[in-house]
Amino acid sequence: MDYANQKLAEEKVFKDPVHRYIHVRDQVIWDLINAREFQRMRRIKQLGTSYLVFHGAEHSRFSHSLGVYEIVRRILDDIFHGRPEWDESERLVVLCAALLHDLGHGPFSHSFEKVFNVDHEDFTREILQGDTEVNSILKKVAPDFPKKVAEVIGKTYANKQVVSLISSQIDADRMDYLQRDAYYTGVSYGHFDMERILRVMRPFEDQVVIKSSGMHAVEDYIMSRYQMYWQVYFHPVARSAEVILRKILQRAKYLSGHGYKFEQPPTHFLAFFDRSFTLKDYLALDEGVLMTYFQLWITERDPILSDLCDRFVNRRLFQYVDFDPGKDYKKLGELAQLFQKAGIDPEYYLIDDSTSDLPYDFYRPGEEEERLPIHLLMPNGDIKELSRLSQIVDGISGKRRTDYKLYFPAELLIDGKKKEIKQQILELLREGGV
Amino acid sequence: MDYANQKLAEEKVFKDPVHRYIHVRDQVIWDLINAREFQRMRRIKQLGTSYLVFHGAEHSRFSHSLGVYEIVRRILDDIFHGRPEWDESERLVVLCAALLHDLGHGPFSHSFEKVFNVDHEDFTREILQGDTEVNSILKKVAPDFPKKVAEVIGKTYANKQVVSLISSQIDADRMDYLQRDAYYTGVSYGHFDMERILRVMRPFEDQVVIKSSGMHAVEDYIMSRYQMYWQVYFHPVARSAEVILRKILQRAKYLSGHGYKFEQPPTHFLAFFDRSFTLKDYLALDEGVLMTYFQLWITERDPILSDLCDRFVNRRLFQYVDFDPGKDYKKLGELAQLFQKAGIDPEYYLIDDSTSDLPYDFYRPGEEEERLPIHLLMPNGDIKELSRLSQIVDGISGKRRTDYKLYFPAELLIDGKKKEIKQQILELLREGGV
Amino acid sequence: MDYANQKLAEEKVFKDPVHRYIHVRDQVIWDLINAREFQRMRRIKQLGTSYLVFHGAEHSRFSHSLGVYEIVRRILDDIFHGRPEWDESERLVVLCAALLHDLGHGPFSHSFEKVFNVDHEDFTREILQGDTEVNSILKKVAPDFPKKVAEVIGKTYANKQVVSLISSQIDADRMDYLQRDAYYTGVSYGHFDMERILRVMRPFEDQVVIKSSGMHAVEDYIMSRYQMYWQVYFHPVARSAEVILRKILQRAKYLSGHGYKFEQPPTHFLAFFDRSFTLKDYLALDEGVLMTYFQLWITERDPILSDLCDRFVNRRLFQYVDFDPGKDYKKLGELAQLFQKAGIDPEYYLIDDSTSDLPYDFYRPGEEEERLPIHLLMPNGDIKELSRLSQIVDGISGKRRTDYKLYFPAELLIDGKKKEIKQQILELLREGGV
Amino acid sequence: MDYANQKLAEEKVFKDPVHRYIHVRDQVIWDLINAREFQRMRRIKQLGTSYLVFHGAEHSRFSHSLGVYEIVRRILDDIFHGRPEWDESERLVVLCAALLHDLGHGPFSHSFEKVFNVDHEDFTREILQGDTEVNSILKKVAPDFPKKVAEVIGKTYANKQVVSLISSQIDADRMDYLQRDAYYTGVSYGHFDMERILRVMRPFEDQVVIKSSGMHAVEDYIMSRYQMYWQVYFHPVARSAEVILRKILQRAKYLSGHGYKFEQPPTHFLAFFDRSFTLKDYLALDEGVLMTYFQLWITERDPILSDLCDRFVNRRLFQYVDFDPGKDYKKLGELAQLFQKAGIDPEYYLIDDSTSDLPYDFYRPGEEEERLPIHLLMPNGDIKELSRLSQIVDGISGKRRTDYKLYFPAELLIDGKKKEIKQQILELLREGGV
Repeated sequence: MDYANQKLAEEKVFKDPVHRYIHVRDQVIWDLINAREFQRMRRIKQLGTSYLVFHGAEHSRFSHSLGVYEIVRRILDDIFHGRPEWDESERLVVLCAALLHDLGHGPFSHSFEKVFNVDHEDFTREILQGDTEVNSILKKVAPDFPKKVAEVIGKTYANKQVVSLISSQIDADRMDYLQRDAYYTGVSYGHFDMERILRVMRPFEDQVVIKSSGMHAVEDYIMSRYQMYWQVYFHPVARSAEVILRKILQRAKYLSGHGYKFEQPPTHFLAFFDRSFTLKDYLALDEGVLMTYFQLWITERDPILSDLCDRFVNRRLFQYVDFDPGKDYKKLGELAQLFQKAGIDPEYYLIDDSTSDLPYDFYRPGEEEERLPIHLLMPNGDIKELSRLSQIVDGISGKRRTDYKLYFPAELLIDGKKKEIKQQILELLREGGV
Repeated sequence: MDYANQKLAEEKVFKDPVHRYIHVRDQVIWDLINAREFQRMRRIKQLGTSYLVFHGAEHSRFSHSLGVYEIVRRILDDIFHGRPEWDESERLVVLCAALLHDLGHGPFSHSFEKVFNVDHEDFTREILQGDTEVNSILKKVAPDFPKKVAEVIGKTYANKQVVSLISSQIDADRMDYLQRDAYYTGVSYGHFDMERILRVMRPFEDQVVIKSSGMHAVEDYIMSRYQMYWQVYFHPVARSAEVILRKILQRAKYLSGHGYKFEQPPTHFLAFFDRSFTLKDYLALDEGVLMTYFQLWITERDPILSDLCDRFVNRRLFQYVDFDPGKDYKKLGELAQLFQKAGIDPEYYLIDDSTSDLPYDFYRPGEEEERLPIHLLMPNGDIKELSRLSQIVDGISGKRRTDYKLYFPAELLIDGKKKEIKQQILELLREGGV
Repeated sequence: MDYANQKLAEEKVFKDPVHRYIHVRDQVIWDLINAREFQRMRRIKQLGTSYLVFHGAEHSRFSHSLGVYEIVRRILDDIFHGRPEWDESERLVVLCAALLHDLGHGPFSHSFEKVFNVDHEDFTREILQGDTEVNSILKKVAPDFPKKVAEVIGKTYANKQVVSLISSQIDADRMDYLQRDAYYTGVSYGHFDMERILRVMRPFEDQVVIKSSGMHAVEDYIMSRYQMYWQVYFHPVARSAEVILRKILQRAKYLSGHGYKFEQPPTHFLAFFDRSFTLKDYLALDEGVLMTYFQLWITERDPILSDLCDRFVNRRLFQYVDFDPGKDYKKLGELAQLFQKAGIDPEYYLIDDSTSDLPYDFYRPGEEEERLPIHLLMPNGDIKELSRLSQIVDGISGKRRTDYKLYFPAELLIDGKKKEIKQQILELLREGGV
Repeated sequence: MDYANQKLAEEKVFKDPVHRYIHVRDQVIWDLINAREFQRMRRIKQLGTSYLVFHGAEHSRFSHSLGVYEIVRRILDDIFHGRPEWDESERLVVLCAALLHDLGHGPFSHSFEKVFNVDHEDFTREILQGDTEVNSILKKVAPDFPKKVAEVIGKTYANKQVVSLISSQIDADRMDYLQRDAYYTGVSYGHFDMERILRVMRPFEDQVVIKSSGMHAVEDYIMSRYQMYWQVYFHPVARSAEVILRKILQRAKYLSGHGYKFEQPPTHFLAFFDRSFTLKDYLALDEGVLMTYFQLWITERDPILSDLCDRFVNRRLFQYVDFDPGKDYKKLGELAQLFQKAGIDPEYYLIDDSTSDLPYDFYRPGEEEERLPIHLLMPNGDIKELSRLSQIVDGISGKRRTDYKLYFPAELLIDGKKKEIKQQILELLREGGV
């Protein structure tokens, strides 16, 4: 039998706390899971620094990727299978895209990408199409198969049904991570009736729609998403850790570019400092590697690098106050000057950070981020956009919410030195703070 | 107020998936959690290599330690508080012992300890009493307080009630890990009615007993424990990973002792190879550090070290067959000779491993491991040993179960070279195998 | 010791699926639970006819009442205890009010009250203050204690903190029933983090407020409530059963008033038909009694009573279509005439029913139903109304939603007789229908 | 299409708290659920009097029957479908048998059957094969179909695979009720990994076996069963209610046979008193009907009937002591005489009750109750009896456990009259008591 259709002699089953079991029957899927680029995701946490707030959130992108695969598998095998609107020949490409959609994520992606100006989506594409185990498995299916999987993940694939299973406002990716992150953090948000949603998903023309009888389950899902963003993903303490992490990487890069002699040289990072990196360099990184450097750098001579690493490794995080970018920017300038005077480098110790979310939106032409709306399939065959039917969703649709914080090392501002200046700083902070 | 009784201005609360919330009001506890030796436990997995079988089991000893603390806190504050048999002045020492009981665990303890002949209990004692942040916090309570905490953990503390809350056949340690490991692996074993058990625990003379009305909850707990041992902790595939890990460490030590020139020198390990290590050397290790070495060693010239590291990092594990040490030992000798002939070093590639458990036992004088039995408190005030009342427990009491496996690299035995010898090997293995 | 403070020798514990355990230590509470008026609530379903849609929803008002009690007990004992803003002497009156707040509910209250023009709140007051076991227990606390409990339930009690624990937009009553009804129906809505909400409730001046750190848990609670109302409480099929039930009672009353000779006389109902009932008559009723009559009446000669009883007992419910009272009222008149012509009495077989909910509202002076808003306690001590801070709640605040349905016996419209008229009816229905 | 294979236009789905959803596609199943004999099971509690101990246990046999159906449906459609050892033509008969297996249960079966010497299994057969709606539906499948369904339920059906899905030591009936009763009572026992068990069930020769890889899930199931029996089903307080119920029915029968003039005549019972009942008489009974009589009989003149009814309706239960039938029978005689002297009729007020269970057993020829053992299917195709492989099951296999209790009205023994005799009684009771 050809490789694309090859089945395992016996179904393999993974015990999963969120979906109970993850079922694998396709040889291709099994081989991909065993590829080293896929196994590498075990060494990258799904939620980056969130475990420093929610100690249970130590789960990896490996678990999440299996989960997204399983959701898509259930949609295809239990719901779409046999429906004339669904093209059965797309099955394998969706399953592979679901499994591999996060493959390019690196250690603490969010901060890493910002500092080194890289994009995990580029790496995903490169792993799929470059010289990797994953690529050699996909190529065995068909020479253009790696490209097809990359197109699905990159949202340029022709069949939009396929794309929207993986990325849309109600896709398998979100459905897995909301539930999984809720499970591991232990928060009670993040639960919604996924089984109900799956049962009412339908392929319909060039999209995946939801039968209107499932509208309330979708409302619940959107509320879960909203809550998870603000309660977990944007938690200000996890952002404090991200801020420090970013500053560590920035400092190491700066030192390296300014002739500083490291006792523990940043070997794994050099190619990123000068942008000469290859895929191999990227794949050699994971969170254990970064943490190993950070621990060693605690004893570096550079006081800023050393202090920031100590803060990150031993969880001595920055404090924060609310901050209104409209009216407080002038104050930020004053604060920076006062920090300078107090001998605390504001570049590394006074950081403004913002985060923002749009809980749900329908298509608004011309906007920067044109989102595909969630469409409901009415009993009479019509299609209606969700917020037109749901009072709840209408109430939050299109309303962007943004949070601004200013991070700083509170304990440095209350020690004995330069008391007066620090007093001024504290007063300025207090004005804007909670 | 003295430090021992100092309370936080506002209670701190950790979201925990197993106990919902973990509550901290004591300044001492809060300070210990923030100590770097305690934060280090975030970098050590609770279940070592089990995540290679149960992908959800990525939780750390940090989470577990908080859990044990919370269980003990609830016993003391909700159940024991105010009972004349309980000495309220022991509260802080038990809470600290609960929180810190696993502090000396290193990366992949089980294998690490075997190869380097060290014991995590020694390290726990040393962290408590040596030059550490934890020690300086404990000393602030009283000069002999670190020693007292160490005695509770070491089971030599005078008040046996205190000891048995942390280590006995039904202690807070086990109650947390059974539930926590079940939660993270996703298995359905491991659940029992802890709330019920806590409510019927009573301090009684020199022990902690269980009111007989809670007997069935205790039976359930013992069955959970039995199932978790055989379904999760002793899973043969996780043991395969442990076997490989042991052999990596053993090989690195051998190479280092025989003049091999590492491209990536085993800096962090040197003090363990020649047993010159200090506590600082030990605390510098964690699982991220070990994994960093293993990834780098994949490109070492030594084929055995390189291969074993590749196996561990990329999950290419050994296969196994059942093995009867009574009758199969001769066969093991034959197999070793055949491996040698086939050019596969049996020292690293043919490993017998056994594991064993005694689900419950009462006191049997003179036995190597004298266990404290679980005692039930009858309505009339009598004390009865559990297995005398419980038919279920009696059925398994004192029955040791042992499992023997033989691990080997199956795929090396089916490649093209030395076909005949490998054929012989495979036949010998098949005879004993599943 | 005086009765009000008398404690049980040993705490009594009820196993409860929602709150795990319900704890009783007060002798008064224990005695009330054992009173016959309280035990009677075991014979009245919490959700009336909903079990005909959600087969699991067979739980009684007894369970719910224990649940409300337990929530209040936890608020008082774990959260409010010791706070200066809370008057500890109110403890027993709140606990009693929580336990007894639903005491006056009769069988299928909703329909029963409509047909016989009675109000369960009047009966609650009468049970508390009349000649009952409950009253004699309450009087033992203090002569005016029954009246006080009645005032709390009736919302006229002076201490508004006390009132709002039992009835407000976030009270123990709602928190129990949302969770309990979700548990028994099996729907995934209805879950919210009650433990979190309880922990942030604070007595404050003349109300109970929520610390702003708990805002997201409150949002989640309001969304749960919204979903439960529309998914469960207002389910159109359960309303179909209510409609039939109402018509049974109405028909029996009509027949009784028009000299019809029952084979099974409506003994238990007579005092309600002529409004001569006493409390004793009311307490003699429960859902088993009503169902016993309905089963017997299936064989009555009156075809309408017989048919309606058969429908209710054997779940042969009416079908329904959507209905717009604005534009469809004329059509309703036409339909009634056509029903008459077709020989189907529209009084009993063509019923319009509406249901309506306001998910959350703040105080709007002059409106019919002036609701107390949910107030958040800010870190700086200010009080803010929920919808001013919560985008989600603001989106639905004050938006009343109403649903209109028209119920009718679909199968009678497709049988052989008077085909043409029935054809006309079906066409009219289809126009307005789903 | 023929009726046996007729499918609903759209699948019907019931929300179920235990199995999440119950799926119905077969027209036959849908019609059976709507039959009045099936709807009647809504009025009969699954656990009889247990709700008087576990207030949540108010669920009906209706829910349980749907659950058993759903488990069998999943086994057939997801696991057995397509396996050569399974005869696909048996599908409908098993589904019907699963759905209808409890159809003959009456109100409080256990006591009712004892007093009136009837057997619910006879009634099940009669409902299936007599003049009922259920029968007319089954006959539409095939004239001999009702008989076939009856044979499956009666265990005489030729295909033993079919029988053992419904009744064996690991069948769908038990798997549903253990989980369902655990869910509604709220106890933590009763949970096991049913999904795992279903996945490893296999049709094999004339039985259903379990793949040995699922052994631990089966162990867990057997332990759950054991715990549920002793913690829930045999709870001594629920048995106290059963004892009283039995005595009510016995007293009513006695009075009726001895010319007593009832104010509220036992109309519904007369045919059972003189054994002239028909199926129609039986189907007219349910728990609401019985409770209606018991409430009315509280005001009967006969003091025993009146008192017993008051006890049952208002939960004034008998107390109990342990009782050893071997050595305490003489004492029982003495007690009876003393009761007589004290003016308390021992026939109604001094009742010994025993209950007994065999947690698991393999086939032991010649024993009264020859049970079919659970067989495991080994990887090599061999069959092994469970207790030969499972240490845990071996520990309890074949060990019958029996509990004896003596019930009596404690409060009558401490009132003022005949003090001395009552003192003697209390002393005798105390000797044997807990």
